[in-house]
Amino acid sequence: MVLKGNAIVAQSGGPTAVINNSACGVIEEWMRQNTGDKIFAGVSGIKGILEGNIIDLTQQDAAKIAALRHTPGAGLFSCRYKVQPSDQEKMIEIFRRHNIRYFFYNGGNDSMDTAYQTYLAAKAAGWEMQVIGVPKTIDNDLPFTDHCPGFGSAAKFIAACVRETGIDLESVSTKNKVTILEAMGRNAGWLTAAAALARRFPDEAPHLIYLPEVPFSKSKFIAEVEAIYKTLGYCYVVVSEGIRDDQGEYIAAGTAQKDAFGHVQLSGVGDVLKNLVESEIGIKARCNTLGTTQRSAMHFASKTDADEAYMCGVEAVRMALAGKTGVMVTLERESNSPYKCVTGEAPLSGVANVEKKLPVEWINANHNYVTDEFIEYARPLIMGEVDLPMKDGLPDYVRLDLQKGRLL
Amino acid sequence: MVLKGNAIVAQSGGPTAVINNSACGVIEEWMRQNTGDKIFAGVSGIKGILEGNIIDLTQQDAAKIAALRHTPGAGLFSCRYKVQPSDQEKMIEIFRRHNIRYFFYNGGNDSMDTAYQTYLAAKAAGWEMQVIGVPKTIDNDLPFTDHCPGFGSAAKFIAACVRETGIDLESVSTKNKVTILEAMGRNAGWLTAAAALARRFPDEAPHLIYLPEVPFSKSKFIAEVEAIYKTLGYCYVVVSEGIRDDQGEYIAAGTAQKDAFGHVQLSGVGDVLKNLVESEIGIKARCNTLGTTQRSAMHFASKTDADEAYMCGVEAVRMALAGKTGVMVTLERESNSPYKCVTGEAPLSGVANVEKKLPVEWINANHNYVTDEFIEYARPLIMGEVDLPMKDGLPDYVRLDLQKGRLL
Repeated sequence: MVLKGNAIVAQSGGPTAVINNSACGVIEEWMRQNTGDKIFAGVSGIKGILEGNIIDLTQQDAAKIAALRHTPGAGLFSCRYKVQPSDQEKMIEIFRRHNIRYFFYNGGNDSMDTAYQTYLAAKAAGWEMQVIGVPKTIDNDLPFTDHCPGFGSAAKFIAACVRETGIDLESVSTKNKVTILEAMGRNAGWLTAAAALARRFPDEAPHLIYLPEVPFSKSKFIAEVEAIYKTLGYCYVVVSEGIRDDQGEYIAAGTAQKDAFGHVQLSGVGDVLKNLVESEIGIKARCNTLGTTQRSAMHFASKTDADEAYMCGVEAVRMALAGKTGVMVTLERESNSPYKCVTGEAPLSGVANVEKKLPVEWINANHNYVTDEFIEYARPLIMGEVDLPMKDGLPDYVRLDLQKGRLL
Repeated sequence: MVLKGNAIVAQSGGPTAVINNSACGVIEEWMRQNTGDKIFAGVSGIKGILEGNIIDLTQQDAAKIAALRHTPGAGLFSCRYKVQPSDQEKMIEIFRRHNIRYFFYNGGNDSMDTAYQTYLAAKAAGWEMQVIGVPKTIDNDLPFTDHCPGFGSAAKFIAACVRETGIDLESVSTKNKVTILEAMGRNAGWLTAAAALARRFPDEAPHLIYLPEVPFSKSKFIAEVEAIYKTLGYCYVVVSEGIRDDQGEYIAAGTAQKDAFGHVQLSGVGDVLKNLVESEIGIKARCNTLGTTQRSAMHFASKTDADEAYMCGVEAVRMALAGKTGVMVTLERESNSPYKCVTGEAPLSGVANVEKKLPVEWINANHNYVTDEFIEYARPLIMGEVDLPMKDGLPDYVRLDLQKGRLL
């Protein structure tokens, strides 16, 4: 028997270029299912829900909801907030007040923990509610799923930038002879590894890739850059922000600060390596730090990724209405050539706070590049481009009115 | 009477996304004119020419030459080299040996100085040769021309990135509340200013723009960021790498090194400002340093810019064959709505080493944003997208065989 009641969807953690495809999938599929009940948004994730910042999405313009499919950022706003035991009573009170029986939470590892805590809280309080996690992360580090919505687009953008700046470096190697690109991904090297998609010829960028899954050695790094430089006259390095030495110490500066989930905040490893190249090899280097462009570059997003993100949102609603709860939607690759991917499910209890790292067998023996198996895995995920409406020379992104339809 | 003899084209300085459109325009127009003489490339600019690194472009595959129109980097390779008086004899000897009567040099301020020195050297030696400068620079700082090929594409890319990362910041402002984007442009703020194209609504990113044309004050900066942060809860800052204080001292670290032209090498102003925000206001900040992606992002280049870059190359050949020499091709805007732009010319003697800065009247009274007049000037330059052939999910850029057809 299907539970009668309203739905809520919310987003959490760092956005991806396609996170709004998932939110749009949830909203549009809920409308299509025509249950007679409303769908709300928790504005700014669970934090907004706890603060009663909830809007009725059925009052939004349908064209604006549809435009979420080509809009980066978190269209419903996001938060980084770890649910506390003291939040449980408030949460249940809000679910009761608005008769919320379907809870869709769109995020990464930490957000799946939030979804799981919400599931447990509802269960403990005897509040019947279907809780479904909708995956997203450019880090690609959620377990049980073949890959994560958001990764393909970030991978496509980073690979394009590496190809372009690699061609730039090759063609004017008389000044800055080493380019270092710093990629996001604290503990998992998936996105850093994706830079390898740029390379068509053995001498092309990137030449060296340093991943957080294996220890980093400064002296080995210097020797490897120097060897490439001696052969080609220039060298292109891609490095994860989270690389550590064999003692487990971060190579990046600024390890003192931690976020709400206790994760160390990193920045500057690219500059550390740039300074190493200049001081130890004595050649000029340049560091490109793409930062948040990696998770928001909808202007060059992967259509495969965008479509899968939408599919995950759609499937979340179908699963919930089929009586599923306490699970996250997953992506299951059925074949690689032709590429075919369907949805599956995994228990939130198993997903919460678990990070899936790049398999060590996909890292080469020298620990400075990825294997062809990784390329075969990643290539299908960057295929196709999203059709973007343009206005005044720039992508015409939507901004929802997040004050409209606010619940009292 | 038209001079009988071969042509050479070469590229110099930092590439732009569309610099190869100009080289392609020169090559294809030379072929179309069908003079019966060859067109060569100086591989790696004037440095390559002096070293005799010259290839016969008529031996390249025409499809590959055409593919330069969608390929970033310097397709003919580039250099940063200041011609010395001692180079003149060698230069003339090479021109004589290969009967080079047409010299097309594709570059920015420094490169136009090289073209001018070449023009003077040929004249002094009594070697009749038509010397034409073909403009390019993302910095947009060449004098006499309304704008420079390369600027529109860099402006489009930076504006797209600011819009996207601005939406990202706005939608998840619970951690890094200030985003700083560091833009290229040592002494001229054109590209930094172009970030303003991203803003559609008054509260949207970017909120503050700091330009090298006016003095920068750290205390004023802190007060301005704090004021925006208090109103919106976040703040997006775009800053030129070349900002200085009222004593003329660079705000960026690392001012000790100079390049071949004596220009100070800058990096890190974004990090300086990030640290200021964190230490003086006590809120977390993030710095995006796009680096060389700004000058190579063909994946989101401006079609207007690409077409004008090609037109400048075409026009250079026509001007040379019409007997012009010692001039640079310029762009003259005939109307803004509809946008119409034609080519003109300016003497190399007046162009060489002169930097055109952003007019102070296009900077607001508070010195922290640009005026609507700048937006009206810049908007037409970012219109349209280049049609990119894709392969395996990424742009299919060409690589010429720069060994093929090498002259002896």
